[in-house]
Amino acid sequence: MKNRILVINPNSTVAVTEAMDRAVAPLRPGFEGEIRCVTLAEGPPGIESQRQSDEVVAPLCRLAEREAPETAAFVVACFSDPGLYALREITGKPVFGIAESGLLTALTLGERFGIVAILETSIPRHARMIRGLGLEARLAGERAVGFGVTALANAAAVESRMIETGRALRDDCGADVLVLGCAGMADYRAAMESALGLPVVDPTQAAAAHAVAAVQLGYRRALTGPAQ
Amino acid sequence: MKNRILVINPNSTVAVTEAMDRAVAPLRPGFEGEIRCVTLAEGPPGIESQRQSDEVVAPLCRLAEREAPETAAFVVACFSDPGLYALREITGKPVFGIAESGLLTALTLGERFGIVAILETSIPRHARMIRGLGLEARLAGERAVGFGVTALANAAAVESRMIETGRALRDDCGADVLVLGCAGMADYRAAMESALGLPVVDPTQAAAAHAVAAVQLGYRRALTGPAQ
Amino acid sequence: MKNRILVINPNSTVAVTEAMDRAVAPLRPGFEGEIRCVTLAEGPPGIESQRQSDEVVAPLCRLAEREAPETAAFVVACFSDPGLYALREITGKPVFGIAESGLLTALTLGERFGIVAILETSIPRHARMIRGLGLEARLAGERAVGFGVTALANAAAVESRMIETGRALRDDCGADVLVLGCAGMADYRAAMESALGLPVVDPTQAAAAHAVAAVQLGYRRALTGPAQ
Amino acid sequence: MKNRILVINPNSTVAVTEAMDRAVAPLRPGFEGEIRCVTLAEGPPGIESQRQSDEVVAPLCRLAEREAPETAAFVVACFSDPGLYALREITGKPVFGIAESGLLTALTLGERFGIVAILETSIPRHARMIRGLGLEARLAGERAVGFGVTALANAAAVESRMIETGRALRDDCGADVLVLGCAGMADYRAAMESALGLPVVDPTQAAAAHAVAAVQLGYRRALTGPAQ
Amino acid sequence: MKNRILVINPNSTVAVTEAMDRAVAPLRPGFEGEIRCVTLAEGPPGIESQRQSDEVVAPLCRLAEREAPETAAFVVACFSDPGLYALREITGKPVFGIAESGLLTALTLGERFGIVAILETSIPRHARMIRGLGLEARLAGERAVGFGVTALANAAAVESRMIETGRALRDDCGADVLVLGCAGMADYRAAMESALGLPVVDPTQAAAAHAVAAVQLGYRRALTGPAQ
Amino acid sequence: MKNRILVINPNSTVAVTEAMDRAVAPLRPGFEGEIRCVTLAEGPPGIESQRQSDEVVAPLCRLAEREAPETAAFVVACFSDPGLYALREITGKPVFGIAESGLLTALTLGERFGIVAILETSIPRHARMIRGLGLEARLAGERAVGFGVTALANAAAVESRMIETGRALRDDCGADVLVLGCAGMADYRAAMESALGLPVVDPTQAAAAHAVAAVQLGYRRALTGPAQ
Repeated sequence: MKNRILVINPNSTVAVTEAMDRAVAPLRPGFEGEIRCVTLAEGPPGIESQRQSDEVVAPLCRLAEREAPETAAFVVACFSDPGLYALREITGKPVFGIAESGLLTALTLGERFGIVAILETSIPRHARMIRGLGLEARLAGERAVGFGVTALANAAAVESRMIETGRALRDDCGADVLVLGCAGMADYRAAMESALGLPVVDPTQAAAAHAVAAVQLGYRRALTGPAQ
Repeated sequence: MKNRILVINPNSTVAVTEAMDRAVAPLRPGFEGEIRCVTLAEGPPGIESQRQSDEVVAPLCRLAEREAPETAAFVVACFSDPGLYALREITGKPVFGIAESGLLTALTLGERFGIVAILETSIPRHARMIRGLGLEARLAGERAVGFGVTALANAAAVESRMIETGRALRDDCGADVLVLGCAGMADYRAAMESALGLPVVDPTQAAAAHAVAAVQLGYRRALTGPAQ
Repeated sequence: MKNRILVINPNSTVAVTEAMDRAVAPLRPGFEGEIRCVTLAEGPPGIESQRQSDEVVAPLCRLAEREAPETAAFVVACFSDPGLYALREITGKPVFGIAESGLLTALTLGERFGIVAILETSIPRHARMIRGLGLEARLAGERAVGFGVTALANAAAVESRMIETGRALRDDCGADVLVLGCAGMADYRAAMESALGLPVVDPTQAAAAHAVAAVQLGYRRALTGPAQ
Repeated sequence: MKNRILVINPNSTVAVTEAMDRAVAPLRPGFEGEIRCVTLAEGPPGIESQRQSDEVVAPLCRLAEREAPETAAFVVACFSDPGLYALREITGKPVFGIAESGLLTALTLGERFGIVAILETSIPRHARMIRGLGLEARLAGERAVGFGVTALANAAAVESRMIETGRALRDDCGADVLVLGCAGMADYRAAMESALGLPVVDPTQAAAAHAVAAVQLGYRRALTGPAQ
Repeated sequence: MKNRILVINPNSTVAVTEAMDRAVAPLRPGFEGEIRCVTLAEGPPGIESQRQSDEVVAPLCRLAEREAPETAAFVVACFSDPGLYALREITGKPVFGIAESGLLTALTLGERFGIVAILETSIPRHARMIRGLGLEARLAGERAVGFGVTALANAAAVESRMIETGRALRDDCGADVLVLGCAGMADYRAAMESALGLPVVDPTQAAAAHAVAAVQLGYRRALTGPAQ
Repeated sequence: MKNRILVINPNSTVAVTEAMDRAVAPLRPGFEGEIRCVTLAEGPPGIESQRQSDEVVAPLCRLAEREAPETAAFVVACFSDPGLYALREITGKPVFGIAESGLLTALTLGERFGIVAILETSIPRHARMIRGLGLEARLAGERAVGFGVTALANAAAVESRMIETGRALRDDCGADVLVLGCAGMADYRAAMESALGLPVVDPTQAAAAHAVAAVQLGYRRALTGPAQ
């Protein structure tokens, strides 16, 4: 289909893909194309380590190559942005990582962003990424809720823990905008915004919005990979 | 009207507003709202100095206050982002500056951005802004075409000068994505992309796209101004 | 008069101008010129927001233009440094902003500076300014006393609150020099220094001292605004 | 064997592994252990893209897991440091990446380092890495010789091209120490040092030296990956 | 004498001290104290290396201790700021280094400063100092005239070489304010300003002006050295 | 002797030199040269101030000059790295400072380093040094144990105080690797690692390891001092 945006959940948990699908729904009305969320079957149930993040790149690239002819823009929907730069070598079409897009969107909504991470162990990985992006001057802090990706399906306890974590970022770290540091958490956005009085960026929404705009405006990157 | 995005050209040159209007047209199909470009009658013919940039804030704020009840999101369409933070005090609705949005969009399309300025004298002003945004780690350089804002209406000579400036940014400064450092230059985007092989970001398009997404996703900022 | 330094209070509260006048008195003996403090009649009673800061630039520039022929150097005496760069376009004579001068002076007196702000809402505005100046590496922190500019006239409660705020900057943030983040607070300097054992910079004093030196040494800037 | 250091060439070109083996020879005398260079059979002939760099992580991790019981420290011998952080999750034993070690070693030998890259397309990838490491303040520049990894086996033309590139880094960028931006180029070190009068760091040598020291001094990292 | 400012030339060349004395003359009228320039007899003829800079600290400290009871503020008048932090441990009275003061003054006069060094070999030493001060964001560049400190006494050739160096900083590096990277060059300031159209900061003048202001305003630092 | 590494303790406390000698013992087996630790007789009992740090440079340089013909590499074994850059002017042979080497080694073992200082007053001095090195992006924090250098000989109380300080760096500042901010504390390394579960870098060990590698690999710096 013309103007198809492919949002790839690089973990294999379909419930996460479904949450993404709900999250991007507000972007669909009137977009003259399709926003399609797919699950990377070869991915782990959740990406919770650098190794898992690195290891999904191979199947992710194969998926992207297969789908490229039918795809106008890609979104890699994991907050470690696995394969973001690899995909940008494969195709000159726009490719967005949800961490990159989520953080950049936050910069338009507040002065200093706080990140609600899932696991404590993600924080150093994200810190490297943020420095790599050159955005550390605006980082207020990152705090973990302490759940695994798969445990996020249990909504009951998650919401109050996320609000509590966001409150610490606001009150202890001085964040005035929050970014959800994981895909598939958009369902909690409204409750957090309401409880904390801060804008909350769901990174999958942010990246999908970037993709819609990129398709409409016709951005096309120069390939940065090796000449072939 | 529900979901109206107000793109304010803070200079009084209607031809510039018309160019913006053409530029944002690709974002309109299907957006369940309106993207309306207006001219700030009280503005100067072109904003070419810090003083002009500062002096338009007062009428800009009055316009924003008048229009706020009917407006879902604002875009300040001058590359000095005049009044961006003042407007963010007036309203909790999303407000975008075209410089901020243009630069952030460029970060998703390349590693190092180059800015095509109009005038040499804008460069120090932009340098302060980029440092204020915390984005200098990704700046490749800024170069001026050397025309005044109003002279940009003469398309003939402008295009080749802009391409030449973009080429210097690419070849001398190492930019792999360009940002047009002025509103109302989107008409030259395609020619530059074609001549240079780099993505070129028109900042008004970038900010309007941010505004569309913000309306669709319901972002709402905390007010940062003084309690009233 | 020859060698007149014009210290402009851009708010309209004469008591603040009078406090400045007292503050700069130690710089007068022997200066072969005049340090004159004036009130911008068109200003608000206090500048407590970005909007107010931006909106005083127009009358400030008009005042500066009127007074330029009789003025050897200008001081903009509000900690948001409104119009600092606009005035630097209007005249090649030295122009100092009290925030800029206060922070730079602090760098000679300590390793890490803390800022005593008036209002919580000023802090993000100052943060942008500090990044814009490129001085964030030396910032220990900023804390607000929580009074409005006009309330500062009530000396009783203010002093103990300022000392308390300075103590938090020293003990929690590691500041070893403090900067008063508002004009017209110099009367509290001695009490703070005595209570806290740290040097305290009144920014109006700092900028006026810079202006005196600039006049004596004959600095003259290149105009950075548009050619006219 | 006790105290075995495993230097893993993640490309499958045995000649590169052999060059590494020669390069680390000066570190062997007296080290009470073994420095063993191995080829990752599953790797591509050369790692010339982000995708290749990411895709070798999976087999690299499997190799590391297999060899961990017999290994005291690991070296990942590709200048993109593929899998460096993944391996640091797998084992608490020291793991060194040749880019990280090469750059850190250069910081002890000069004020500003220049990198001799193989391909132009590697430069943005390295730039992200250097920012991620937080070392950009000391980067003089990076320039490419323009050969593919495999072409490096042809010694004749390579040497003069590398000297020429190093000279540009010294004379145009102000580098006073050079880092070879690829594994397996140590054979050219002496000629470059002699021609240019600057210290030249072979990154595989640098990382292997770090590994020897780490084994001798008994460093042991805390695992940063997910609890298991 | 009350309010004596001691400007210490840490090299033993009396002609340099005399040039400083001329340089600070414009600050004397009306200062209710004395600005006295003295030569450190134990210093080398010129400080042209890190070693010389470090080695003058011992006699410099002894001189400062002897003179402290009669001194209200100190200026260390060598662009390497030798002993600046050591003196700040010895006395709580204000101590200024001419490099620190010169650079900070330049920040009020332009957007990006260029430094006119004497020798090529000083540049890495200054680069470390500028990073240590946290001011590198505003550095345009540094270029050397290529004379030794003592050769500067020969005015004929020096002036044109300094103008030429300043021109390179302006035109190649984008500096809009220059700092003389050596004490005792103030005699060339006017000619450079006139030839280049940029403000030129003589660092000894800048530091002496800081000292005058500090005495007038009564700054007193907390001692940062070890408790004794 | 061929390949002699000279580790210079610039304080005159022989017990500190002896502790260094024990610390570097693991690097000796098999090194085809000598690692010799010497005491600078002219040094103070402990270097606890900037002045002391600066004042040892003169005798340190004389010692280095005397010993240079017999020395393959130097280590300056005080965490203020006194004379590091002066020695690098005197000789093209590798010279290592224990602070520089300790911090760089820490970067390979963790994401953010914490420094265990001896005295509170050292912290601003180290902060300048870390900024001078360009490594502040990775600094988690620095905390002092509050003992003087000579008091460190009393092992009983020191160990628990160091562990307590390291715990604060880990838990309050987020450090995942610690650096001992003083020479001669290596005896406490094992107890700290065991109590805290973090790698701990003794800087003398780190620098001596760098020196061994530099000798084995034949690094030779370009002289950065003045031509002689």
